Amino acid sequence: MNASRPAGGDLAQLRRLNAFGALRALRSASAPVTLTELATLTGLSRASAEDLATELTDQGWAAEVPPAPGAVGRPARRYRFRAESGYVFGLDIGAHSVLAVLADLCGTVVTTARRTVPPDIRRADRLAVIGDVMTECLDDAGIDAHRIWTISAGTTGVVGPEGDVVLAGAVADWTGVRLAEHLDERCAGTVLVDNDTRLAALAEQRLGAARDVEDAVYIHAGLGLSAALIIGGRVHRGYGGAAGEIGSFPVTPWATAATRLACCPAVPSDVPPRDAAAHVLAAARRGDTVAVRAVDRYASDVALGLAAMVLTVDPQRVVLGGGLAQSADVLLPRLRNRLEPLCIRVPDLQPSSLGDDRVALGAIWRAVEHVETTYLAHNRRPTAARP
Amino acid sequence: MNASRPAGGDLAQLRRLNAFGALRALRSASAPVTLTELATLTGLSRASAEDLATELTDQGWAAEVPPAPGAVGRPARRYRFRAESGYVFGLDIGAHSVLAVLADLCGTVVTTARRTVPPDIRRADRLAVIGDVMTECLDDAGIDAHRIWTISAGTTGVVGPEGDVVLAGAVADWTGVRLAEHLDERCAGTVLVDNDTRLAALAEQRLGAARDVEDAVYIHAGLGLSAALIIGGRVHRGYGGAAGEIGSFPVTPWATAATRLACCPAVPSDVPPRDAAAHVLAAARRGDTVAVRAVDRYASDVALGLAAMVLTVDPQRVVLGGGLAQSADVLLPRLRNRLEPLCIRVPDLQPSSLGDDRVALGAIWRAVEHVETTYLAHNRRPTAARP
Repeated sequence: MNASRPAGGDLAQLRRLNAFGALRALRSASAPVTLTELATLTGLSRASAEDLATELTDQGWAAEVPPAPGAVGRPARRYRFRAESGYVFGLDIGAHSVLAVLADLCGTVVTTARRTVPPDIRRADRLAVIGDVMTECLDDAGIDAHRIWTISAGTTGVVGPEGDVVLAGAVADWTGVRLAEHLDERCAGTVLVDNDTRLAALAEQRLGAARDVEDAVYIHAGLGLSAALIIGGRVHRGYGGAAGEIGSFPVTPWATAATRLACCPAVPSDVPPRDAAAHVLAAARRGDTVAVRAVDRYASDVALGLAAMVLTVDPQRVVLGGGLAQSADVLLPRLRNRLEPLCIRVPDLQPSSLGDDRVALGAIWRAVEHVETTYLAHNRRPTAARP
Repeated sequence: MNASRPAGGDLAQLRRLNAFGALRALRSASAPVTLTELATLTGLSRASAEDLATELTDQGWAAEVPPAPGAVGRPARRYRFRAESGYVFGLDIGAHSVLAVLADLCGTVVTTARRTVPPDIRRADRLAVIGDVMTECLDDAGIDAHRIWTISAGTTGVVGPEGDVVLAGAVADWTGVRLAEHLDERCAGTVLVDNDTRLAALAEQRLGAARDVEDAVYIHAGLGLSAALIIGGRVHRGYGGAAGEIGSFPVTPWATAATRLACCPAVPSDVPPRDAAAHVLAAARRGDTVAVRAVDRYASDVALGLAAMVLTVDPQRVVLGGGLAQSADVLLPRLRNRLEPLCIRVPDLQPSSLGDDRVALGAIWRAVEHVETTYLAHNRRPTAARP
């Protein structure tokens, strides 16, 4: 019957979907894939899988792998995704440091470089440091900048739709920097810029403590206090990129919470300011009453802003990240106590399961997803890319 | 080449998608569709379109329509979706009234019935009234309950995943009612229950003032004050169905805002309590200074909760609905003034463009979308349905 015979447009579409399906199957496999396995993974016939494998190899997306050693009889042909077809950068541009992570198209980290910067460094100098860490990664890996398909940067502040830093209260001389434009010359493809807390939330959703959760709030508790939202399994940016900015709400004391914690008299005078808050949390863990009072106050401060977000979006889980998350055993029970009278339903509270490279990890993850939807799904490469 | 030859599973899938595509095309057309038009709308060949039209007619989903009168030459065959294949109910169960709307599978309203109820009515009596308005609709339309494919109900309160009213502060004896279970016997298919404000938000997003917007906050300002969220073009319920419950936040005065407005001394003593707030808004429009002060205070109260939601999700638009939205000219400029110092970015503020049947409209819309994804997309009917 005619209805079962697809038209030409349908076939081209089907072929593209099959090719992308095969590419995804090769890409997500932990080991090289035989043609029989590829047929199973894609739901195609073995003959179709073989045609696709040849096509993808000809196009440079896949490579045949030598037979497994010691195989008996005629060895099965095996293929892998050529993750080295291109590379991506994940950047974490913080107030106190800049981290660059270079990864292949599967997101496997090739090399990293980090520099500490003074928070009051001038804009041009901070931009120069960003360039330096990227150059260091490229030199270390022996990779040309033309092979960078996507740069994904996380920065403090509110990021506009063009990749500009619209507002950065915590970093001097950073409001108004056109970050995407600045990074563009170092990339053959796309530059993506987002708020650093939001990329940390993405990392938690894809790899960390929010991995199995569709709706979550991520709280960064460190030298500052900030938040980001995961809704429907995706990072929620908001129409103007300002979602999660509950710290600006005048009734929440988020802007001063970390400083107030660090100013606790339980901190000896020889402890450097950056370590003071961790010191208070450690003292509270030991039962120091002054420290306990300071931590209780901090938990109240966090809870007030967090409750506003919880009542708005009713997330399944709240993930606590940032430097202070190392004292989650001290903080989370107090945070739960403070949330209970404020919320209809207190979400599950969990500490981050990632390290302090979570922003860069989120950036890499976002870059790899961008590569998949923008390039791989359409069987194309960035126009400026060179092999 | 083999890769272009789809396997059997692919073909069945393609055929199902084509049938659904044709059904959608017939359903969304404003007039009967010729085979040539159907081919264009679905992207299929004319022969495939004809096969599909015959198949759908045989299955009872479509009907051939007599030729247009006065057509010259051999008349083109025309088809329509059989919207009368089944029916849906949209219910608005409020504190003061119950509204039932009966519609066909296209969402076209067949008939409606409304009853006023005292807010302190007993649970059993309120449930009986709900039954009465539904029976009245069925009798009026001459339709048997076995032809109801979906009942979609909106009710005040927090609704749990099983369609239970988990918490209803504004209605006596309503917390804990198992509404979905109660309505189930009156339906051949699915019963859907949601918070009424959320269904009003859905109606605004599909038909009203948030129609072109992906992310919006809807505020219901009437005898009470409540909110709902649209995120990514969908109503956001939250993990426990408690999204938008910012009115419970102790720092927002939402619980008392409406009462305080109604208690303004500008209201003459002969005005019934239900009309008092509208009276204050009208007096403020005329420049009555006492009323202006009361409305300013109300706008501040609304703004405090709204700002918390805006800072959390950064929506493109806020839509004001409910009875007081009729005075949007008085309220919205004041609301904007109050939001400006509280928010990073003040969203576009718009009055609702729907009437006070918006909850029932949202319920109908939700039912029709459910019918589409659950039944039409899979070419099936509810198992208990009778023609």
